[in-house]
Amino acid sequence: MEKQKLLINGERLKQTVEEFADFGRTENNGVTRLALSEVDIKVRDHFKSVCEELGMTVKWDDMGSMYATLEGIDNDKPPVVVGSHLDSVEKGGRFDGVLGVLTGLEIVRTLVENNIKPQVPVVVANITNEEGARFEPSMMASGVMSGRFDKGAMLKSTDKHGVTFEEALKVSGYEGSKENRLKEAEAFLELHVEQGPVLENGSIDIGVVECVVGMCCYEIEVIGDSDHAGTTPMPMRKDALFAANNLINEIREKMSKLDSDLVYTIGRMNVSPNIHTVIPNKVVFTIEARHKEAATISQVEDIIQGLSESVGKEKCEVTATKLWDRDTVWFSDKLVNSLEESCKSLNYSYKRMPSGAGHDAQFIATYLPAAMIFVPSVNGKSHAEDELTSWEDCEKGVNVVLQTVLDMTTS
Amino acid sequence: MEKQKLLINGERLKQTVEEFADFGRTENNGVTRLALSEVDIKVRDHFKSVCEELGMTVKWDDMGSMYATLEGIDNDKPPVVVGSHLDSVEKGGRFDGVLGVLTGLEIVRTLVENNIKPQVPVVVANITNEEGARFEPSMMASGVMSGRFDKGAMLKSTDKHGVTFEEALKVSGYEGSKENRLKEAEAFLELHVEQGPVLENGSIDIGVVECVVGMCCYEIEVIGDSDHAGTTPMPMRKDALFAANNLINEIREKMSKLDSDLVYTIGRMNVSPNIHTVIPNKVVFTIEARHKEAATISQVEDIIQGLSESVGKEKCEVTATKLWDRDTVWFSDKLVNSLEESCKSLNYSYKRMPSGAGHDAQFIATYLPAAMIFVPSVNGKSHAEDELTSWEDCEKGVNVVLQTVLDMTTS
Repeated sequence: MEKQKLLINGERLKQTVEEFADFGRTENNGVTRLALSEVDIKVRDHFKSVCEELGMTVKWDDMGSMYATLEGIDNDKPPVVVGSHLDSVEKGGRFDGVLGVLTGLEIVRTLVENNIKPQVPVVVANITNEEGARFEPSMMASGVMSGRFDKGAMLKSTDKHGVTFEEALKVSGYEGSKENRLKEAEAFLELHVEQGPVLENGSIDIGVVECVVGMCCYEIEVIGDSDHAGTTPMPMRKDALFAANNLINEIREKMSKLDSDLVYTIGRMNVSPNIHTVIPNKVVFTIEARHKEAATISQVEDIIQGLSESVGKEKCEVTATKLWDRDTVWFSDKLVNSLEESCKSLNYSYKRMPSGAGHDAQFIATYLPAAMIFVPSVNGKSHAEDELTSWEDCEKGVNVVLQTVLDMTTS
Repeated sequence: MEKQKLLINGERLKQTVEEFADFGRTENNGVTRLALSEVDIKVRDHFKSVCEELGMTVKWDDMGSMYATLEGIDNDKPPVVVGSHLDSVEKGGRFDGVLGVLTGLEIVRTLVENNIKPQVPVVVANITNEEGARFEPSMMASGVMSGRFDKGAMLKSTDKHGVTFEEALKVSGYEGSKENRLKEAEAFLELHVEQGPVLENGSIDIGVVECVVGMCCYEIEVIGDSDHAGTTPMPMRKDALFAANNLINEIREKMSKLDSDLVYTIGRMNVSPNIHTVIPNKVVFTIEARHKEAATISQVEDIIQGLSESVGKEKCEVTATKLWDRDTVWFSDKLVNSLEESCKSLNYSYKRMPSGAGHDAQFIATYLPAAMIFVPSVNGKSHAEDELTSWEDCEKGVNVVLQTVLDMTTS
């Protein structure tokens, strides 16, 4: 029972979050810390020295991902890894990513100050370029370490100034050995801000993430005829915008009958020629949908592929092209259960939920046991300077991960 | 009865249309003849010399509009004017505008070859810059002569190369005296291609134009919230695109219950931030509607101004801003009836109809008796290289105008 009473130092966590936010802090109290930028290199140096002061050994791999290791009793066994990413988007928040890295740091500090030597090593990880804001794609280094992305192609990814990822990595001093990649672990645990409104809305402390949802994304093109808006009677028109409007009605009506957890978004829509006195002859829009069950995504695809029948009355033509899809990634049952038990033992309210956004843990989960928890995002905001998680919620989240680490590393 | 048998020379009309199309003819048999461009100056010179060869006197006014006068018996009386415009849009057709000017020319040729001296002068007019394709706005010179546009402002209108209308007019050699403006006339008669599908669809020879319809144009702005497409459950969204979709449904449903001659178009629509993974937080679209009855336009405005109530369920805000409106311009009853009688006497099928597009005659109608007829546009196309009116339909149209000119100028 003793170990369940061990809690982290909330005040220290808060100070550390603010200390790390000083690396790239913006006017409006957000953070700009693009991957391998000058300020990202400085925060890496700072992270390294803080970890070394705690007695940890810091290494980095061939994509620059950093691993600070606290020795355990049996150092031949796979470690428990806690981590996320220190990079941010342009004018992002102080919590997205960094909070997951500092979760690991605060846990190690708590172990060290309590003279707890874990059974196996505890690693705090900073995975390079999760955001993809400077070098596309996002989740670049976890994609490489999981074999999902080709390293050679990633090295050639170029920022808007023409600098390649490879060049930036060399200059940073964080180009390490491939040998140092995260190859084995008992667990990869990632705490992240929710980036959505569900927890706050339900006054729930912790989201225990079961999976990262699968999705599909289509582009729909509607072709009509661009006749004169003044001289063409309504029944003689081939109005691509009205046809698109019909399609969107059909999509919304049919999708709303599927599982209520389904989310679907028409985020991009372009009208041609886009002149107020001309009937649109072309409308192109995207529809993307996300759900944890493959069967539901399959229903979505059936709806989208069946759309061509419904635009007939506007005498337009429609084509649906799949842009991409991805399958749901399920996290380790054992770890999800363990995180849930930690919530219970701490008397925190929690909710098992899927992640609608992508995270490094989803790639790592393809070859190592991995799991995530979410802490509430005020107003569901992220990737914005006003991104916020209350200090109390940060503290609770780190306590949950600490509890699971203790369960796995102490007897 | 004798005069009713007088017909124009269809073969000569065809040759003249092709002859004029040589000034600016495009690769695909269209015409590019922007106002006061080099090729427009050349076609003006050609028009002038052709008219002078017929014994006409050619003058031009301070906006460059040209008036070729065939003397009548009583030259102190106001003339009968037949005209339109020789300028075209970029890659326009061979008929739009020029056919109305050549209608006047063919009528004069017919009078001259038949030794008919009209009671009053007959003027063939080429009104400058109807299209507004090089110098905005359209219907520039008729707008000035009717007092609708300020001449000083028009002179400052600039083309995309920075040349002002004033500079282009001076260089052209067609800057004439204000005294020469069209100040009085017994009639201004304009033949024009329909630019719509109604006549062709009904296999009708002639459209007798009663009016140029009034219209209103609004911009609708919908404001929502740009949350993450993956993490925001459907009921918690403020999706501006879905709200706009609701609005368009409401607009279409309510407008469809108004008079069936009403035309309404959502021609321009812009979505923000227009990224497939982000819920749109702003959609701006235009809605313009045209109808000859002011009461119907008023119903349209009531619908648009009442829209704010219907977006509540998407939790978005909507504002409707009127961009402009214009009242219906009714043509002279006497002239419309006369043109209708001409159709009957020639055994041509005809239809009284409104014009949905704007024409010089609508400005001239505000201070002189004016009227128009339409000839069929194949596939309703205009402002395009494949704009087409059959030679037979061209001939019939000119015969109708000839008949009305004869009615007004011969006893």
